[in-house]
Amino acid sequence: MNYKIDNLQYCKWSREVFEINHQAGLDAVHVTVVYHEDYDEFLERLKEWDEHFKNNSDLIFLGKNFSDIEKAKKDKKTAIFFGFQNCSPIEDDIGLIGKVHEHGCRFMQLTYNNQSLLATGCYEKNDSGVTNFGREAIKEMNKIGVVVDMSHSAEKSTFDAIDISEKPIAITHANPSFWHSAKRNKSKDLLKTLADSKGMLGLSLYPHHLKSGTNCTLESFCEMTAQTVEIMGINNVGIGSDLCLFQPDTVVEWMRNGTWAKQKNFGEGSKSKPGFPKQPKWFEDARGFKNLETGLKKTGFNDEETNKILGNNWFNFYKGIN
Amino acid sequence: MNYKIDNLQYCKWSREVFEINHQAGLDAVHVTVVYHEDYDEFLERLKEWDEHFKNNSDLIFLGKNFSDIEKAKKDKKTAIFFGFQNCSPIEDDIGLIGKVHEHGCRFMQLTYNNQSLLATGCYEKNDSGVTNFGREAIKEMNKIGVVVDMSHSAEKSTFDAIDISEKPIAITHANPSFWHSAKRNKSKDLLKTLADSKGMLGLSLYPHHLKSGTNCTLESFCEMTAQTVEIMGINNVGIGSDLCLFQPDTVVEWMRNGTWAKQKNFGEGSKSKPGFPKQPKWFEDARGFKNLETGLKKTGFNDEETNKILGNNWFNFYKGIN
Repeated sequence: MNYKIDNLQYCKWSREVFEINHQAGLDAVHVTVVYHEDYDEFLERLKEWDEHFKNNSDLIFLGKNFSDIEKAKKDKKTAIFFGFQNCSPIEDDIGLIGKVHEHGCRFMQLTYNNQSLLATGCYEKNDSGVTNFGREAIKEMNKIGVVVDMSHSAEKSTFDAIDISEKPIAITHANPSFWHSAKRNKSKDLLKTLADSKGMLGLSLYPHHLKSGTNCTLESFCEMTAQTVEIMGINNVGIGSDLCLFQPDTVVEWMRNGTWAKQKNFGEGSKSKPGFPKQPKWFEDARGFKNLETGLKKTGFNDEETNKILGNNWFNFYKGIN
Repeated sequence: MNYKIDNLQYCKWSREVFEINHQAGLDAVHVTVVYHEDYDEFLERLKEWDEHFKNNSDLIFLGKNFSDIEKAKKDKKTAIFFGFQNCSPIEDDIGLIGKVHEHGCRFMQLTYNNQSLLATGCYEKNDSGVTNFGREAIKEMNKIGVVVDMSHSAEKSTFDAIDISEKPIAITHANPSFWHSAKRNKSKDLLKTLADSKGMLGLSLYPHHLKSGTNCTLESFCEMTAQTVEIMGINNVGIGSDLCLFQPDTVVEWMRNGTWAKQKNFGEGSKSKPGFPKQPKWFEDARGFKNLETGLKKTGFNDEETNKILGNNWFNFYKGIN
């Protein structure tokens, strides 16, 4: 059986998005529920998801573990797995890790771009690695079954997390820096260590992570995938598109600034280009998985390898979460 | 005019404590209102203080700036200045700095012992210095009039804070490490840099910061004071006793553990000595200021110098806060 999984989307959720993902044949999507929201604000977001599940029960349902991906495939629906792009919802309380898991959280980034209580983000000048609280949190996440996601973390912190975590960790959405040197992309050494520990990389389709941005070609992306597989092996690479479909620019502004600064920060953007960047033509939404399939095969991947990258690797990773 | 100021106490507040401070002749006390409490929990603590002020208006009132210390002297009362030993009450929101100031906060530590969102605490393995959010917070604290307190911070973070802050910072309660090597005590280099920037050190009477702990002698403490003055000059040294009068041991347990770990941490204590340590005989409470006065003079300080250390230096520092 082959599964199609996009292991990171942060869209402005609506029936339209769920229909697109359905048309794309996605069996599972890891969705970002919150960034900088605290626990109570996370509960508010959950109410919105309750409505989505109620109003779109023909298309989606809440995924709890890998068997829900099998169920989704069988029922022709998409299993939605919850994740956080910052650790804000657990505040300073290790007891909240169990609580967010009860509410469906399966992936949690230890940091967004800045320093968190757990580790250092990739936009800080210095990286002190995983903190005292971070060590305790990783132990608890391992025990309970919340995946450590280091997509936005700084390098030493990520090496630390791989070392401390007794379960494989994930970088759900980023690309290798040898292809495109962005703060958010990852070094060869790191990707090698991640793969050696059975961790997963989800390749990102977000223009700021792509060589030539919006103008990145499918060929270039698939060639990069082949080079990444050379470093990481064929079992540790998947897709985490980072699609932000239909989000207004106010959202990217808030993602970058949260409530920590009085003046505006532009993150991966710039003063002249502050908003969400435009997707490449061949991946305007998840239906681009079809183009990826064609492109990967053209680059030399066989059917089995292509299917691993487009979902089967993530499916196997999900099997190990609990 | 001479003022007596204890620039750090965290007692179990009661009329008895306020009476002791009154007997000690304290014109001002900087009190720790919260450690790891978030903004809402801080507001709860304020309700308790409202009661204290109402029930003990013959002894105490809320101090807002240096002129309240003059007022306290005149009225034979003690001005109470609020401070935080962690930055938890501002959560991840720079806008809350103005709010806590409105509610009386005049000192805020950027960290307790662990990493915070602003800087690194002295119990972390690595110290990445002041963070992105930390830089913004310091700017805002400078602007609004909340003193940066680095008592529990790691060394690089403290150097950073001195460098970034446009106003003098404080280490309200710690001792030099040349005298007693404790994680919480500070290096000569740091104390020199602090003094050069017109920052203040409040010498601590907490046994874990004292040479020989509970058995520390008054002579040894006063000799250390003289050596510290040699490094920092006579205008930058005061007292921040760190008195935790009448606190039950559950409180020190909570101070050390907050909600960040499932197993117990002993901080400056140990498994065999987990509770609050016993004060030295000559400083069982603030009435020990009298012994300090005698001891300092015996060590060679003249009247003016002694008065500077026992309060006038802090008074001058308060003049610069707003």
